[in-house]
Amino acid sequence: MWTYRSGQAQETQDVLAVEEPLELRVLEEGGDFALAVTMRTPGQDESLTRGWLHAEGLLPFVDSLHGDPDQPNVLWLRGDAAALRHRARAGVTSSACGVCGSGSVERLSLRVLPPRWTAPPLPPEQIVALPQRLRDVQPGFAATGGLHAAGLFTAEGGLLCAFEDVGRHNAVDKVVGWAAERGQLPLSDRLLVTSSRAGFEIVQKAALAGAAVVITVGAASSLAVDTAAALNLTLVGFVRGERFNVYAGPERIAK
Amino acid sequence: MWTYRSGQAQETQDVLAVEEPLELRVLEEGGDFALAVTMRTPGQDESLTRGWLHAEGLLPFVDSLHGDPDQPNVLWLRGDAAALRHRARAGVTSSACGVCGSGSVERLSLRVLPPRWTAPPLPPEQIVALPQRLRDVQPGFAATGGLHAAGLFTAEGGLLCAFEDVGRHNAVDKVVGWAAERGQLPLSDRLLVTSSRAGFEIVQKAALAGAAVVITVGAASSLAVDTAAALNLTLVGFVRGERFNVYAGPERIAK
Repeated sequence: MWTYRSGQAQETQDVLAVEEPLELRVLEEGGDFALAVTMRTPGQDESLTRGWLHAEGLLPFVDSLHGDPDQPNVLWLRGDAAALRHRARAGVTSSACGVCGSGSVERLSLRVLPPRWTAPPLPPEQIVALPQRLRDVQPGFAATGGLHAAGLFTAEGGLLCAFEDVGRHNAVDKVVGWAAERGQLPLSDRLLVTSSRAGFEIVQKAALAGAAVVITVGAASSLAVDTAAALNLTLVGFVRGERFNVYAGPERIAK
Repeated sequence: MWTYRSGQAQETQDVLAVEEPLELRVLEEGGDFALAVTMRTPGQDESLTRGWLHAEGLLPFVDSLHGDPDQPNVLWLRGDAAALRHRARAGVTSSACGVCGSGSVERLSLRVLPPRWTAPPLPPEQIVALPQRLRDVQPGFAATGGLHAAGLFTAEGGLLCAFEDVGRHNAVDKVVGWAAERGQLPLSDRLLVTSSRAGFEIVQKAALAGAAVVITVGAASSLAVDTAAALNLTLVGFVRGERFNVYAGPERIAK
């Protein structure tokens, strides 16, 4: 690699964010088939896969996951192969709806239970501290500048887990998968924090995991805000120094 | 919306990045069917769709696109419905391959011609000026902080087009679709500039459009660099002030 500074070129070594494909293959009597391929940062493939399966509504059809030392980019799934094959043929899709954004929100609402939040409203000073707390456990971002992160915190701000990935949706999937593995879904009284922007899919994954409070470092999209408001989630974004926005669900933030 | 500053809450109005689903539907005798749904920022749906179809290898099967005033989130496609239906059933996929990253690069290389570059090597001072030139034509980012952008420049730095979108891949699709509409593919002697990071899919879309030089404001992933190197693209990233990295193809940058 060459690094240019003020027009001067120098040969350098860089640490790159690792991106590799992951193929999910389902074992079936008499053969197997591919369920999905996604680009991801290797290392937490089982959590990533459990979280993704959860968001797609497929986790109940999967009994076990196992890796393969000879094929580090393949993860094998055992379970109800017929059900999974049906979904693979139908095309694994999100709740996105082409007619209108509100149609997408309505479809999603059919799959989501109201989030539970019994903790007191969150102090603003706790919210502004979260991005740095997430950054502190992002060694990959510090080294590469090319990774997103998502973390799970208690309502009091205690860190439960954090994951990095080249894909912002993957980082959230890893958190949800981590919780699923520990029987900690739904994410009642938990804060889901991401380094990314908030789009529809981030809010969708959070809602399906039962999170009541989502905090993103980046800005929120119109559909992310509409979705959070319709599903009674608190959506906080654009956390910069002592400043942040509360796009939806302000009752869970102390005034 | 509420904005908190140093713990003080204030009710505010924010301009949000617009995110809405777009459904591509194919007209067929006796009915129609959905080819794909994607979340996007409305406004350049035909360019977005042409660029996406180009990357998926489907553009040759489409004769015409038309919108529907009653359904602003649906775009209708006319063409070889049987071929499009076959692809929709098979699952529209990228060249991603689950066995290994190099497998993904190999599969992609079968679809890509060597890029053409006849211009002289690019002066570093021209490269460091490009992010600001792109920023200058990003009204959405300035207003929302939540949009990516991609632009097409001549080898001399002249702006040809620029598009914004909540999705970084969409922004690149819009540029490629804009060029396809004008018979300007492949993108020989053009600079494709994006505000985002460089992942495999960004390099894939650039390579399929025949771009020789891709410049991203953000960092590059390992597979993006491997892909650019294998396909003889120049990949520049992490442009910050007077500094940038040349991850692949340094011969097209002046020393």
